[in-house]
Amino acid sequence: MPPNTPPPAAESDVRMRGFAHRSTVVQALAWLDANSLPLGDEPVDLPAAAGRVLAREVVSRVDVPGFDRAMMDGYALHAADTLGASSYNRLALAIINPPVNETETPGTPGTPEPPGTPGTSFDGTVEPGQAFRIMTGAPIPAGADAVLPVEQVDTQGDQVFAQGEVTPGKNIGQRGEDVARGACVFDAGRQLRPQDLGVLSSIGVGKINVVRRPRVRLAVTGNELLPAGTTPDGFHIADANGPMLAALVTRDGGDVIDRGIVKDNPGDILEALNDDVDVVLLSGGSSVGQDDHAPVLLAQHGELAIHGIAMRPSSPAGMGRIGQRRGFLLPGNPVSCLCAYDFFAGRAIRALGGRSRDWPYATVTRPLRRKLVSQVGRVDYARVTLIDDAVEPLAIGGASVLSSTTRAHGFVVIDADSEGFAADSPVHVYLYDSWGCV
Amino acid sequence: MPPNTPPPAAESDVRMRGFAHRSTVVQALAWLDANSLPLGDEPVDLPAAAGRVLAREVVSRVDVPGFDRAMMDGYALHAADTLGASSYNRLALAIINPPVNETETPGTPGTPEPPGTPGTSFDGTVEPGQAFRIMTGAPIPAGADAVLPVEQVDTQGDQVFAQGEVTPGKNIGQRGEDVARGACVFDAGRQLRPQDLGVLSSIGVGKINVVRRPRVRLAVTGNELLPAGTTPDGFHIADANGPMLAALVTRDGGDVIDRGIVKDNPGDILEALNDDVDVVLLSGGSSVGQDDHAPVLLAQHGELAIHGIAMRPSSPAGMGRIGQRRGFLLPGNPVSCLCAYDFFAGRAIRALGGRSRDWPYATVTRPLRRKLVSQVGRVDYARVTLIDDAVEPLAIGGASVLSSTTRAHGFVVIDADSEGFAADSPVHVYLYDSWGCV
Repeated sequence: MPPNTPPPAAESDVRMRGFAHRSTVVQALAWLDANSLPLGDEPVDLPAAAGRVLAREVVSRVDVPGFDRAMMDGYALHAADTLGASSYNRLALAIINPPVNETETPGTPGTPEPPGTPGTSFDGTVEPGQAFRIMTGAPIPAGADAVLPVEQVDTQGDQVFAQGEVTPGKNIGQRGEDVARGACVFDAGRQLRPQDLGVLSSIGVGKINVVRRPRVRLAVTGNELLPAGTTPDGFHIADANGPMLAALVTRDGGDVIDRGIVKDNPGDILEALNDDVDVVLLSGGSSVGQDDHAPVLLAQHGELAIHGIAMRPSSPAGMGRIGQRRGFLLPGNPVSCLCAYDFFAGRAIRALGGRSRDWPYATVTRPLRRKLVSQVGRVDYARVTLIDDAVEPLAIGGASVLSSTTRAHGFVVIDADSEGFAADSPVHVYLYDSWGCV
Repeated sequence: MPPNTPPPAAESDVRMRGFAHRSTVVQALAWLDANSLPLGDEPVDLPAAAGRVLAREVVSRVDVPGFDRAMMDGYALHAADTLGASSYNRLALAIINPPVNETETPGTPGTPEPPGTPGTSFDGTVEPGQAFRIMTGAPIPAGADAVLPVEQVDTQGDQVFAQGEVTPGKNIGQRGEDVARGACVFDAGRQLRPQDLGVLSSIGVGKINVVRRPRVRLAVTGNELLPAGTTPDGFHIADANGPMLAALVTRDGGDVIDRGIVKDNPGDILEALNDDVDVVLLSGGSSVGQDDHAPVLLAQHGELAIHGIAMRPSSPAGMGRIGQRRGFLLPGNPVSCLCAYDFFAGRAIRALGGRSRDWPYATVTRPLRRKLVSQVGRVDYARVTLIDDAVEPLAIGGASVLSSTTRAHGFVVIDADSEGFAADSPVHVYLYDSWGCV
């Protein structure tokens, strides 16, 4: 044994030594997707349903509109009566509901609306030679089969002079043309748009079953951490990951449960892992060092499915289950934390809430200004800026420099089977401000 | 005078006759932009600042990190001491902070953290020939100028054997490398990302001045309307616009003030126009008909700047001011209401809140499956679906068929100077689900 050969390392150094094996991103995503099926449903009031995901399909029990209605202001009549009418051949018709007394102020509170306005009914029938004064949205009276727009008439007293022709059905919105009774209006799984709420309202839905929001416990660990927003003091730094994660979880449709910074000890971490939630996000202590309790606890009390991932940054990330909860081990370095959240935890939260698993980032494809080198076998998360419509790489490493993600316009993912991209190659940039595409 | 020539039309029909003049969309946007400068600012707690817009630039008063720190688990030492070290030439160094008693459980509550862990200080100096056991994030002790990663050492008792070389500065994060004291971290006007909250937290910002959210009063009018989510009853229909507008305003960063359906009479509408808000959205009664009080009231009590716009749908839209409030006249037909909101009111609400005026929709460019015809002089808002990666027009008219906007994937805008697009032309589609680009 040569003099320099050391004996086996001490146990504490084995624990500090790094990962013996790393999972691939693909393996991590496969486990994740199998363990992130949508949660159960809950009823919510319509105004709270925007952006929520339908738990079941919605079938309409009514026609919308529930009656034929005028699509323009004008006169409901028999289309045949307008045959040949023009500005040179005005055809007279008798108005059966002449305007109310002109001295009355229209819309005075307490005055009943006259027939021909929306929401009113008319018991009579429009006979040939007659015209019924009607406003957009009002029900078409019996007998009439078209609406002649006001722009194509002149009136005098109780007579109207048609100056144009209409065909049967013209300017009439048919009963059920918007939504037919019995029709499936939305499929289960739809994330509701603002206008979807309008349609749901119009078919009389006031409460709707949506997928429950995942409850997400934040557990940021680190004895060196001061509460978020505290001025750094000596070697104590303010927690950056807590407010960042809270905003990300909210973006992805989760309910944030934040009970403050968790001390780096097994008891407090285990308590967080056992919280009454769907997902626990542990930030810090995710690796294999002496103070990295979370992976050990997850393995002891649940399942540590993935620990150590072939990616940069975020390689000391992990995930598993404890009881019915999913636990994500996010590295304490803030860029790693963001990256691990976006690759894994955010996807799980979106999927549990029934949303698309895909990233909520718009993408653009632009050429690289210089080459972007990676290592085969590892996925890289490269922060980039867009300069003159081209992509300038900012950083792949620097997991602790969070400002690299605030200076960046977005990021490029370099897959595990790629050595990177040559200068001028087009690359897909995921835009952090996914406020529409550039 | 030929017998068919009518006398001048009665006053009530003039009011029902349509617009004598229509403004262009460009004119409407110009008025809008001049009247939608960002509101004043308000302080909010950091966790509530996600998505808000900075009212002023933020300058850091601290370095982040505030000290040089280890970027990896390993040993802080003199880089020169590693010169020539390899797995065949292990160089021994004396550990000046050997691991704590192995029988002690690390992280036991109450046990002080040993030097070399994050948040701890060390008063000594690392001399040549010495090594200081250090964890990622911990401060670099005096004397040391590099960190040798744990993967490149073996240890025995209080000796560590270097098996690799490091250069000065290696694996050390420099003080201020993330944020330098005095640096402008964010400019005024920035819409805050999740990671921005992390950076703000790390520089000790717990409260931040952001542009105030616009207060937006919803005033949906219509005597035929039942409250949102009520089953339609006879000729009375459930309000679709209220819940849709509330979701749109929320999306665009406004605070919704909804006091229920407003009766179609001048007093109630004027009361809504005088509410203590920044923006009033009046839905219904926006045109020139007998029951269209809102334009008259806006003209009488404030300024009716735009009324009647050369677009389809939404031509009976308008806008103006009353006191410090902006008033938007949105047609009652729900597609028109959505379109007028998206073209005008939403833009104003975003701008008042300091956000980008641009549509919050991602776009894709795809070929048309068939021609899309428009009329020169008019802007069209055509709902479309994407089929086999091509664009299928659904509807330009049909302002009352809201389901055309729920069946559609998005919309195409046809500018006023265009007659439309030929089949196979590439068109830009604004995606209603702007959940990333397709």
